[in-house]
Amino acid sequence: MNVNGQHFRTIWLKPDDPTVVQIIDQRPLPHEFVIEDLTTVPEMAAAIQEMHVRGAGLIGAAAGYGMYLAALNAPRTSVADFGAAVELAGEQLKATRPTAVNLAWGVQRQLDVMAAAGDDVESKIEAALREAQVIADEDAEWCRRIGEHGVSLIEAVSRSKPGEPVNILTHCNAGWLAFVDYGSATAPIYAAHDRGIPVHVWVDETRPRNQGARLTAWELNEHGVPHTVIADNVGGHLMQHGLVDIVITGTDRTTYTGDVGNKIGTYLKALAARDNNVPFYVALPSSTFDWEMRDGVGEIPIEQRDGTEVKYISGWADDQRCTVLLTPADSPAANYAFDVTPARLVTGLITERGICAASEEGVLGLYPEQRKEG
Amino acid sequence: MNVNGQHFRTIWLKPDDPTVVQIIDQRPLPHEFVIEDLTTVPEMAAAIQEMHVRGAGLIGAAAGYGMYLAALNAPRTSVADFGAAVELAGEQLKATRPTAVNLAWGVQRQLDVMAAAGDDVESKIEAALREAQVIADEDAEWCRRIGEHGVSLIEAVSRSKPGEPVNILTHCNAGWLAFVDYGSATAPIYAAHDRGIPVHVWVDETRPRNQGARLTAWELNEHGVPHTVIADNVGGHLMQHGLVDIVITGTDRTTYTGDVGNKIGTYLKALAARDNNVPFYVALPSSTFDWEMRDGVGEIPIEQRDGTEVKYISGWADDQRCTVLLTPADSPAANYAFDVTPARLVTGLITERGICAASEEGVLGLYPEQRKEG
Repeated sequence: MNVNGQHFRTIWLKPDDPTVVQIIDQRPLPHEFVIEDLTTVPEMAAAIQEMHVRGAGLIGAAAGYGMYLAALNAPRTSVADFGAAVELAGEQLKATRPTAVNLAWGVQRQLDVMAAAGDDVESKIEAALREAQVIADEDAEWCRRIGEHGVSLIEAVSRSKPGEPVNILTHCNAGWLAFVDYGSATAPIYAAHDRGIPVHVWVDETRPRNQGARLTAWELNEHGVPHTVIADNVGGHLMQHGLVDIVITGTDRTTYTGDVGNKIGTYLKALAARDNNVPFYVALPSSTFDWEMRDGVGEIPIEQRDGTEVKYISGWADDQRCTVLLTPADSPAANYAFDVTPARLVTGLITERGICAASEEGVLGLYPEQRKEG
Repeated sequence: MNVNGQHFRTIWLKPDDPTVVQIIDQRPLPHEFVIEDLTTVPEMAAAIQEMHVRGAGLIGAAAGYGMYLAALNAPRTSVADFGAAVELAGEQLKATRPTAVNLAWGVQRQLDVMAAAGDDVESKIEAALREAQVIADEDAEWCRRIGEHGVSLIEAVSRSKPGEPVNILTHCNAGWLAFVDYGSATAPIYAAHDRGIPVHVWVDETRPRNQGARLTAWELNEHGVPHTVIADNVGGHLMQHGLVDIVITGTDRTTYTGDVGNKIGTYLKALAARDNNVPFYVALPSSTFDWEMRDGVGEIPIEQRDGTEVKYISGWADDQRCTVLLTPADSPAANYAFDVTPARLVTGLITERGICAASEEGVLGLYPEQRKEG
């Protein structure tokens, strides 16, 4: 999408030096736009762990490019040495964030591609480079299609209230910054806006890391989409008073049975949507499905991050990034990063193949190749 | 309750000068403890509006002391002039915060007392002074009794898990800082802690003004009650995983039918409690009941505060209070301060007279004098 009128993806190879991966460092947004060069696996692992890059699709693409950097930097003494090094790099990358299913998916895809490539190191490096690009292109294309499918939901609401904006609530950032381009939850919104359907987005701040207030608001602002930032506490009240037509969120891991792991607080919005008959949709490319897990609440691992992310917050004062303490210095804080919304609260899933029910039936109907042999 | 080992209320008359009302200015907490002198109605109105003082019971007591200041400063030329001035002051005070029912209640109580007092200005001033003290004492005593009644709920949970702490989730600050002493939601917690029942409190941060992270955490810390600060998004996840035994919140206005107006986000926690069979209690002195309204969601006025409270946050950096911008400078923000939790989601109300169901039956059973003539 556009930044100051120039098209950007969230991750790409440096045009004049394909040994360098470039990313937008998302931490200083919305106040500074910083591009970062990465040339090693530890750099990529730190970028994922410290959330220079974050979001389901982008983490998958970062895993792909990270494995390409692993291949570039692996010993070329023998195919076995090379293989051992890239395996180890894969483990390092996978250890950075436990909840995001795209991470392991991207790593495994690269390992498989390198294993299948010609039996010399150079072929494997070339294959990893090609696959990293394919993963990124595929992510962008899948998000574009999510937009094509999801826009029908917004169009339908719009027809029911002509001339008025469709009010969409979203949580966290499932925008293009969370993917390679377009975003998942935002793809239908951008598609609607670009077709002239009036939309207005309620942007959940998304404590403690404020991905909504910082990133989603910035994206929508850059693209000219009307939006209003709200505290995470507000959505229920808005729904009680008819001020939300549809909720669309992203997800970090969705079971094939339709349970949705997503940023902490998503479950509360889904409960409010159900209590007020507001449709609650989750947008995801199929790379975010977990094809093994049945019980999301019981099985999806929930990352616990450091409590300092709750106790301190960074913002801007006098053009300086400034970190302030919000709590008594002595008070402990807990920082669960995700929660799981049971499938029963999800109206539907918006995927690159279409919209389906949040159920095993619905998901496997769209992805029949994932049916297990009986 | 105690601050650094010294007993404080939240509002009192200056010991050596009864023309001065003193308050704890709650804005710089938890990092600075500032006592503020108030001598005029505009000062008290600003203290309420800008939230130097806040919380149901304390706003009621501030209204009482504010009306005493009104009487002190009213013209003594005639009873009519005096009466007109205190009436006007009452309007000014009532206009500061629309949701808190205790405000109008405290103002009206003082107007009634002054009207009934001897037919000279001095008697009316004396009556207002006496009544301000009575309102404050009554609030403290009612909160103490709420603690006596509510502790039975915590004791019952504790008996079911001997040796383990009872996990209590609370939202916003319904602590002693929100009242004159003890608090409403915190009164049972302090009573349990003081009796040696092991408790642990999940403190909702309570965006956008962070009354939980700043005030409840500070109170509990000063009193030595184990607690953990969490983002408002976290409670649902905790309840899904059995980490909350009981929710206790306060309220700014509860209808006699049991609908609970409270800090924005309370409704979301009530939904999560219901979805996970966690008991959800609301603690209030009877001054917080609205005896006229039947339909809380439809009728309780919801204050909308300035969006800058969402876009900016204040904290401490290098021992300096510092305000930082959290969003893109251009992004608008909305700031609904309260929501309404329908009675159907409330397990019970903890009042100074005992615990009752959140229903007309339950409330009027405890307060039969409020039954309307048929």
